[in-house]
Amino acid sequence: MLTDRIRLFPLMERIVTADQAAALIKDGMMVGMSGFTRAGDAKAVPLAMARRAQKEPFQITLVTGASLGKDVDRVLTEAKILKKRMPFQSDPTLRAAINRGEVMFVDQHLSETVEHLRSGQLGPMDYAIIEATAITEEGGIVPTTSVGNSTSFAALAENLIIEINLSQPLALEGLHDIYTPTRRPTREPIPIVACDSRIGLAYMRIDPSKVAAIVITEQADSAAVLEAPGPETDTIAEHLIAFFVRETAKGRLDLRASPLQVGIGNIANAVLSGLASGPFERLQMYSEVLQDSTFALLDSGKLVFASASSMTLSEEYAGRVLKNLGKYRDRLVLRPQEISNHPEVIRRLGIVAINTALEFDIYGNVNSTHVNGTDMVNGIGGSGDFARNAYLSIFVAKSVAKDGAISSVVPMVSHVDHTEHDVDILVTENGLADLRGLAPRERARMIISNCVHPDYREQLGDYFERALRRGGHTPHVLEEAFSWHLRRKETGTMLAHSTIKRSA
Amino acid sequence: MLTDRIRLFPLMERIVTADQAAALIKDGMMVGMSGFTRAGDAKAVPLAMARRAQKEPFQITLVTGASLGKDVDRVLTEAKILKKRMPFQSDPTLRAAINRGEVMFVDQHLSETVEHLRSGQLGPMDYAIIEATAITEEGGIVPTTSVGNSTSFAALAENLIIEINLSQPLALEGLHDIYTPTRRPTREPIPIVACDSRIGLAYMRIDPSKVAAIVITEQADSAAVLEAPGPETDTIAEHLIAFFVRETAKGRLDLRASPLQVGIGNIANAVLSGLASGPFERLQMYSEVLQDSTFALLDSGKLVFASASSMTLSEEYAGRVLKNLGKYRDRLVLRPQEISNHPEVIRRLGIVAINTALEFDIYGNVNSTHVNGTDMVNGIGGSGDFARNAYLSIFVAKSVAKDGAISSVVPMVSHVDHTEHDVDILVTENGLADLRGLAPRERARMIISNCVHPDYREQLGDYFERALRRGGHTPHVLEEAFSWHLRRKETGTMLAHSTIKRSA
Repeated sequence: MLTDRIRLFPLMERIVTADQAAALIKDGMMVGMSGFTRAGDAKAVPLAMARRAQKEPFQITLVTGASLGKDVDRVLTEAKILKKRMPFQSDPTLRAAINRGEVMFVDQHLSETVEHLRSGQLGPMDYAIIEATAITEEGGIVPTTSVGNSTSFAALAENLIIEINLSQPLALEGLHDIYTPTRRPTREPIPIVACDSRIGLAYMRIDPSKVAAIVITEQADSAAVLEAPGPETDTIAEHLIAFFVRETAKGRLDLRASPLQVGIGNIANAVLSGLASGPFERLQMYSEVLQDSTFALLDSGKLVFASASSMTLSEEYAGRVLKNLGKYRDRLVLRPQEISNHPEVIRRLGIVAINTALEFDIYGNVNSTHVNGTDMVNGIGGSGDFARNAYLSIFVAKSVAKDGAISSVVPMVSHVDHTEHDVDILVTENGLADLRGLAPRERARMIISNCVHPDYREQLGDYFERALRRGGHTPHVLEEAFSWHLRRKETGTMLAHSTIKRSA
Repeated sequence: MLTDRIRLFPLMERIVTADQAAALIKDGMMVGMSGFTRAGDAKAVPLAMARRAQKEPFQITLVTGASLGKDVDRVLTEAKILKKRMPFQSDPTLRAAINRGEVMFVDQHLSETVEHLRSGQLGPMDYAIIEATAITEEGGIVPTTSVGNSTSFAALAENLIIEINLSQPLALEGLHDIYTPTRRPTREPIPIVACDSRIGLAYMRIDPSKVAAIVITEQADSAAVLEAPGPETDTIAEHLIAFFVRETAKGRLDLRASPLQVGIGNIANAVLSGLASGPFERLQMYSEVLQDSTFALLDSGKLVFASASSMTLSEEYAGRVLKNLGKYRDRLVLRPQEISNHPEVIRRLGIVAINTALEFDIYGNVNSTHVNGTDMVNGIGGSGDFARNAYLSIFVAKSVAKDGAISSVVPMVSHVDHTEHDVDILVTENGLADLRGLAPRERARMIISNCVHPDYREQLGDYFERALRRGGHTPHVLEEAFSWHLRRKETGTMLAHSTIKRSA
């Protein structure tokens, strides 16, 4: 019943069609939209905006939590609506437009966007378009499968458009913990002291007079698309779990006390699957995104609590989880991404952070975002929030890509997202490098010995030996630092003296 | 009187000579020493260690707060005592040994070293050697002109050597605020909510039975050596203060509410001097180091409170300040560097962070540490702690060095310490680039137009235009990314088509 969904009845009058709501968005506006990793995103109004733009071109700055589902970023890109986009995306069409320079993309640490908005550093936000499960009696917005930046968008935007999504179960209500840091200069500590700390409200407080339109929708979130795991991802997970076992034996790690953060992707899923059959009990997560593997771990009884900003599930798991939320309610909380990713909380809780590297170099610098130093893939996301502040900062990657034509371990990364200071452990299917307390020359020997693919080991060792002869704290042969990337462009492979034909 | 300095009388029996204390340090040990930016460092015992090493070679891992004075790092390097050194240094002799690969240097964010120690990730600490003003009745250690990492060294080391320095005035007692975060998994928020929050004790709590030796010394701290300011540093300060004025007018900045962090060096000093004669009142500092210019600003009445981990003063100011501590006592606090640099506190307070770049690139990535990507200068220090978490992250640099042969603004930095995500504002004597909310291509235009030296502007614009034709979110001509650095090595200057003779 709609009265369950819109419980502040005067707001019933604001119900309009998606097209009517989309007409409110004008050229040059800054618009905030809900959505974090394809979950809880506004769906109907942005798609209506795209339809409108075919007749009446306009452009906006679009700020979200993170990536959107339902091809919204593709459709908005094709409609040429996006002038500027932040702080994250993962859509191939948008990505291509960004790399052509047609959309200005501002790649940000996911915890920071609302700080910039709040202080006026990004200018005023004209509209926020937020998907909701319900509007409470007081006009509070109950989010759906993500919180993202919506709390702050709702507070800061001059006008609100709310998409009530009937396909999102009412049982979502009570799952969220909505807290916004108090204003400086009287900002108080964020009182989270454990994954399961609840410090706020179950809904976002808004000014109901700002609600310009309410749109009723019933489109489900896009299903998560999982890359198939493979022998390499399983081996990476095995290396990591063996490391956890060793660290536990040495008394340096207690996974009952150190919550896990696990990035998106098949390696992350393999690690969580490994933990499901591993020796660790009473695990906790303090992460950004909860995926299928999180719920499998909850089901196994190994995971006692999970905190994040969104749930991104496959069709199978979405059906299972959203219909049985009562089963998970006591062991789950969704928070604003400012809080799920807050340096203060991450440092306090002592998190074990596992993120995926696109490439890393012999000194442990990590590239998470740029192919060949130039072309954006998705964005830095929350990896920097976690890697910098984690108790253990772990990056994982398969040692090669494109059938061996690309080594993920290179002399120098072509773009730096995480410096050597923020990287403790590197893992490929070949092995694990524990870089803690090591100087750069020691890091290089460890990485070359443990992580690089055997096909590239000699070649990388040769680079390092020649760099050593040049000297320096961080030895390099500067004129060859990117020679592997350039060779790949020229010959199709990073392998020197290769007979492989040009393939790219 | 010594009874004022060692007030737990049974400890009087532990007084030995520096040579006797130095004899306790054995080959292979990990040793922690007090000292942060040449202030409050242990002096007598390390120099005695160097004398001993001439007869009896031994090597240690040396962990400090930051840089040491009294040529201790030089003398220890020459005595070949240093096997490994962390987390910061600024000594030319040690630097050269690091760059030759003779000393393994672990360059760390200054807030993080004790986290690694505490968790056992760096192995056990055998001895801590700590300079003290006094030992209290309970056996508490009152630090001198810095706190650095000494609190945690004293707590974690198996044995302690205390240097009671009679040249450090007893009036230092009461200036410090010693707080250690509680242990995980029950770590509590750090209760600092303002620069002048006092949350701990005036001394470090220790186990008196761990005191292996006490040495009485009277060597003053090394005087700070200030590089002479020049017209460029004054102009940089003027640009920055004009920016502060504009931001204040726009309602986006209130320097009464946003504490300043200012790095070391002559540009930082010029900024503080500029503020002394500028329009801002009731300023506050939450910084690492207090220099002469801080006290000048306190004297001017413009600065109401300063928090840091050390005081590094010229001979003139040391005399003035240390003899008149009563005058400053209510407006000054010295904290452990874990707290002065803690991400949690920096983010909470909304700090305006001003640090010096060695070079930066067209996209705003900053190199703070490495010449030509290989040779270490000092270390990252606390710049990352502040830049990542600041309300405004500002980096300053003169646009050229070596009489114009080196441009500080380059196509791609040869080493990344701070990524574009952590850099809001760049300033050279040519102008200021406000990068907030800009995508990389927009950042490049702003930096080329505002920051680069006129001699290099066309050359840098040409690089960017050719990179644009290649495309990408962050366009580069990868094979030329370091061409400026290589040209400098080959021809003596980064200038293309130059007639300048080889000078390096």
